[in-house]
Amino acid sequence: MAIETRFTKAFGLRHPVALAPMAGVAGGELAGAVARAGGLGLLGGGYGDADWIHAQWPLAGGAEIGIGFITWKLTGGLLAEALERRPKAVMLSFGDLQPFAAQIRAAGVPLIAQVQELAGAKAAVEAGADVIVAQGSEAGGHGATRATMTLVPEVADYLAAKAPDRILLAAGGIADGRGLAAALMLGAEGVLIGSRFWAAREALVPEGFHKAALAATGDQTLRGSVPDAARMLHWPAPYTIRTLRSAFTDQWQSNPDALRDPAQEPLRQAWAEAQARGDAQIGTPVAGEAVGLIGGIAPAAEILDGITTEALSCLNAQRRG
Amino acid sequence: MAIETRFTKAFGLRHPVALAPMAGVAGGELAGAVARAGGLGLLGGGYGDADWIHAQWPLAGGAEIGIGFITWKLTGGLLAEALERRPKAVMLSFGDLQPFAAQIRAAGVPLIAQVQELAGAKAAVEAGADVIVAQGSEAGGHGATRATMTLVPEVADYLAAKAPDRILLAAGGIADGRGLAAALMLGAEGVLIGSRFWAAREALVPEGFHKAALAATGDQTLRGSVPDAARMLHWPAPYTIRTLRSAFTDQWQSNPDALRDPAQEPLRQAWAEAQARGDAQIGTPVAGEAVGLIGGIAPAAEILDGITTEALSCLNAQRRG
Repeated sequence: MAIETRFTKAFGLRHPVALAPMAGVAGGELAGAVARAGGLGLLGGGYGDADWIHAQWPLAGGAEIGIGFITWKLTGGLLAEALERRPKAVMLSFGDLQPFAAQIRAAGVPLIAQVQELAGAKAAVEAGADVIVAQGSEAGGHGATRATMTLVPEVADYLAAKAPDRILLAAGGIADGRGLAAALMLGAEGVLIGSRFWAAREALVPEGFHKAALAATGDQTLRGSVPDAARMLHWPAPYTIRTLRSAFTDQWQSNPDALRDPAQEPLRQAWAEAQARGDAQIGTPVAGEAVGLIGGIAPAAEILDGITTEALSCLNAQRRG
Repeated sequence: MAIETRFTKAFGLRHPVALAPMAGVAGGELAGAVARAGGLGLLGGGYGDADWIHAQWPLAGGAEIGIGFITWKLTGGLLAEALERRPKAVMLSFGDLQPFAAQIRAAGVPLIAQVQELAGAKAAVEAGADVIVAQGSEAGGHGATRATMTLVPEVADYLAAKAPDRILLAAGGIADGRGLAAALMLGAEGVLIGSRFWAAREALVPEGFHKAALAATGDQTLRGSVPDAARMLHWPAPYTIRTLRSAFTDQWQSNPDALRDPAQEPLRQAWAEAQARGDAQIGTPVAGEAVGLIGGIAPAAEILDGITTEALSCLNAQRRG
């Protein structure tokens, strides 16, 4: 049994599931594992560290993977390098697609655009995106304010009316088969999953962060700018980042920019070190509301199989008539 | 064809849908229409205006309806009056159930508790609620931060493990059959719907507000405290209110408490008058992200039939195997 959609057909997949290209987390090993298991594996090109991408790509072990970038940090040069690798797709999130869309299309590579509002979906269609990912605020990492439950059907209606050839994926809060089945009901043809794969064995996440996430419920995340201030990153509006909540995020949540003060350099340094060693008391694990749905760390292939099997079970159990 | 769940069986319904008891909006006519059409009609007892309830209840025309209250505004006396009417259910939202749960149980009336976090669901189970409504932040009106997509399955897991006799409904962002079908996938046995019924012909909503909502997309709502400040209401944390966005909400969103200044009395007065006459430029229509999914004003019975028919179509179309 399988879940076949226009998304699986277009990309030759066994599962209607894409790996979110989480910066620094979705390395070659994870992207390769998802691709080999029949999902769409996307390397986390993130902020555009060419050396990191160069080192990680071969770790996919020859699997056909794609790559995702943070649009406002991307350059034409970095994109050209990525396109030379013949990626299965390029995904762009958080910013204006227009400067890069033609270059991607000219290379014959599918363009996946992640959007957070209906207005963003319209812009993505106009820029020629082949796949639109409607990402709700419940997602871990960067995002905006709209929720998956309303954004997906609203974008589905827009695409049905204006661009029925485009493919819609849902992202944000989806970590199991129930979420995949719900996304299909809302009009998506697949899902993009972050947090559940963040908790995969192949993810580049320190053990301490995995432990903190497994212990957390979905009540214990929040969206804000504390980790961006701690890294001196200047994310444009309207994007904020969802992470686990801690004494540190609570302390700075109402005025994160105070962390940028030169006097806070030692604190920022301590945060960066905690981040590297996986200390969730001082550092800040980046994960979404779906942490409350994650039962354990598992290999990506097992996660994928579990999601599809559970989704099929939900879909068939609910048949009426 | 019908969608039968433990919710429909427990309350003798033809549709697994409850009317959100929207304060000032879900009057007797709307609650009665939903009840007669086979949903669970709940009068919007809101802030506890006994005269309003007294005037509205008969407008249900003898239909078996329930009533909902804002918990932190409820008193034992008002609850006693409501229980004397033999309501089909009492729903409590936003606050501590414990002071009222025994009184409701003693009257033999089902208690529906709306919660916004997993922690709230646990408290509701402990207080003896028969039905738990997991309400996501995308909902119109008051609510908190968690999203429907993750809150519903997380509460479903909790109930399955600890209190499998309780019934779970999903609320927030559900306005059509796709949303109902998605909610069933996530583990709910029905849905509580606000905004879509706010746009029912029987709702106590001025025409200007209906027009503004029909013209809006889901991008054009926001969650904040501006309307509460404009009404001098002191809602406790963590509750905020989702409304349509306007120049007025944008102006005060970052510092709503400034509206409480005595010098702003004329502005508050102008807001209240705009609210009464349905002027969406100055006033603030209370609706959720689902406004982008609402195609027109219709009778409640027609809305209910459309939701179930579409949900059945989604459920059957997605069957795999």
